[in-house]
Amino acid sequence: MQHVADIIEAHTRIERWVHRTPILTCTQISQRLDADIVFKCENFQKTGAFKARGATNAVRSLNESDAKRGVVTHSSGNHAAALAWAAGLCDVPAYIVMPSNAPRVKIAAVEHYGGQITFCEPTQSARESTCQRIQNETGATLIHPYDDPRIIAGQGTAALEFVQDCPDLDLLMTPVGGGGLLAGTAIVARSQEQRIRVWAGEPRVVNDALESLKSGVRQPTTGQRSIADGLLTGIGALTFPIIRESVEEIRLAEESTIRDAQQLIMERMKIVVEPSAAVPLACLMENPQGIAGKKVGIILSGGNFELSNLGRSTV
Amino acid sequence: MQHVADIIEAHTRIERWVHRTPILTCTQISQRLDADIVFKCENFQKTGAFKARGATNAVRSLNESDAKRGVVTHSSGNHAAALAWAAGLCDVPAYIVMPSNAPRVKIAAVEHYGGQITFCEPTQSARESTCQRIQNETGATLIHPYDDPRIIAGQGTAALEFVQDCPDLDLLMTPVGGGGLLAGTAIVARSQEQRIRVWAGEPRVVNDALESLKSGVRQPTTGQRSIADGLLTGIGALTFPIIRESVEEIRLAEESTIRDAQQLIMERMKIVVEPSAAVPLACLMENPQGIAGKKVGIILSGGNFELSNLGRSTV
Repeated sequence: MQHVADIIEAHTRIERWVHRTPILTCTQISQRLDADIVFKCENFQKTGAFKARGATNAVRSLNESDAKRGVVTHSSGNHAAALAWAAGLCDVPAYIVMPSNAPRVKIAAVEHYGGQITFCEPTQSARESTCQRIQNETGATLIHPYDDPRIIAGQGTAALEFVQDCPDLDLLMTPVGGGGLLAGTAIVARSQEQRIRVWAGEPRVVNDALESLKSGVRQPTTGQRSIADGLLTGIGALTFPIIRESVEEIRLAEESTIRDAQQLIMERMKIVVEPSAAVPLACLMENPQGIAGKKVGIILSGGNFELSNLGRSTV
Repeated sequence: MQHVADIIEAHTRIERWVHRTPILTCTQISQRLDADIVFKCENFQKTGAFKARGATNAVRSLNESDAKRGVVTHSSGNHAAALAWAAGLCDVPAYIVMPSNAPRVKIAAVEHYGGQITFCEPTQSARESTCQRIQNETGATLIHPYDDPRIIAGQGTAALEFVQDCPDLDLLMTPVGGGGLLAGTAIVARSQEQRIRVWAGEPRVVNDALESLKSGVRQPTTGQRSIADGLLTGIGALTFPIIRESVEEIRLAEESTIRDAQQLIMERMKIVVEPSAAVPLACLMENPQGIAGKKVGIILSGGNFELSNLGRSTV
């Protein structure tokens, strides 16, 4: 199992390439939850999400000959853009397999960072077989979006900076999809002298992480949709044992609360976050039990949100 | 005419109460305009707009007996919320006259900060007569949203911090409505050893500031609506001479470009700005003439934007 030393090493490897993101607070949100809430703003990270950390760590861990052959992935979300970006920075080819029905903006982001896109049928098996074919043809290294020790270590660097900058956190909270950010965060938290509790937030309609934790066995995704579209994937084989050992609690949030939390962050803090990033706060808004008077660190995972339907000005 | 010494004095008066807002850059926006664009983020200011500066300076300039009687204004925009907030901090009563059809959110913001609202008919004469009645009844001091030396000096403190933090600006640009922010900025810019040019941005549909500058005489507002709803007011009797003397150029932007610029800032910089704040960038997107290779400082005036119609997540 991975150790905090891997995360410290990852941080040294990537710190030249990624932002040390700011930590912000909001009096009104803290007052509302009767706790001291501090936010680590990965929405300001390169490519707009913490995924730049893991991708950079993975790409820069490759030996020279593997780097020449490139990297490949079949995520169409923030990981795809982050991998294309991280690879592009050091002239490593990035092959991104995307479903033919992927949104235009997702395709544009990967193209913008120089990723080489291969479209496939929008099924899991077509994604995997297309990915395998590219690996066979190019010798590229598969970089899984979360079930990879280099990715877990890279994502953990956000929590590492967080505990360095806020040494008195009682609790750390992240969203959970595949579990890369959560597992990396848990490894950091349990290594601290003053042990920090770790919770995760998950949309109620895709509660497979909570069900996995309760049953002790990885559960398949519910197959439902959520506005938190970064969290639809099932928990990983590598991330699950870490989460099972070191995550105290997974809380759930309704879709409407996720929307409310996103709006609260954007209107009060004046920063743009995507729905997935608002899930931990939404969970605490639905169930604040156990946080009164505590210092709670929340990682705002990303800010890639299409603002094509802007509302009206206020105040 | 006012001098930069007034602005330096205002800064000393208010710096304990307002944020020294961050300065952010965005590689993509700078590349697109072939210039070095730096943004002073007054969207992160107290009450979500630079108006907190002028309001604080005005309230804290009152002598003790005037302070006891309170302040009154009939703006229903960011100035109303800022005045209620600034007065509330030092237990000065704030009487805010608002039209009976003011949006719920604007009313809520003033109430939140403890302002005492009086509703009136939604006409200019009703606003002024209601304001006058409250002055007569309470002895409160009228704090005009822009045509007041204390307000101009307070708003100028944003530019003062800007030139301190970015000493090599070639050009400073703000939006223009009544002209308080622009006049304060112009006073700072012309006082610098290496003189900084000052431009303003205005929506094309409410181009009264440009028409005033061209004709040399204050022109009435066009009466049109703009999504930049902070800029609908006509230029002031006190602000106009300063602007006429020290502002080099006023550029215009179409409504659709203002929306595009707002979306660009929010999607790329991950910060929330209101349409009025995006007007200077929109003007440069429509007409970038004269900025190639220059260091251009833009004051992002505010971030009070209702996000009730959130779009979809991307990437």
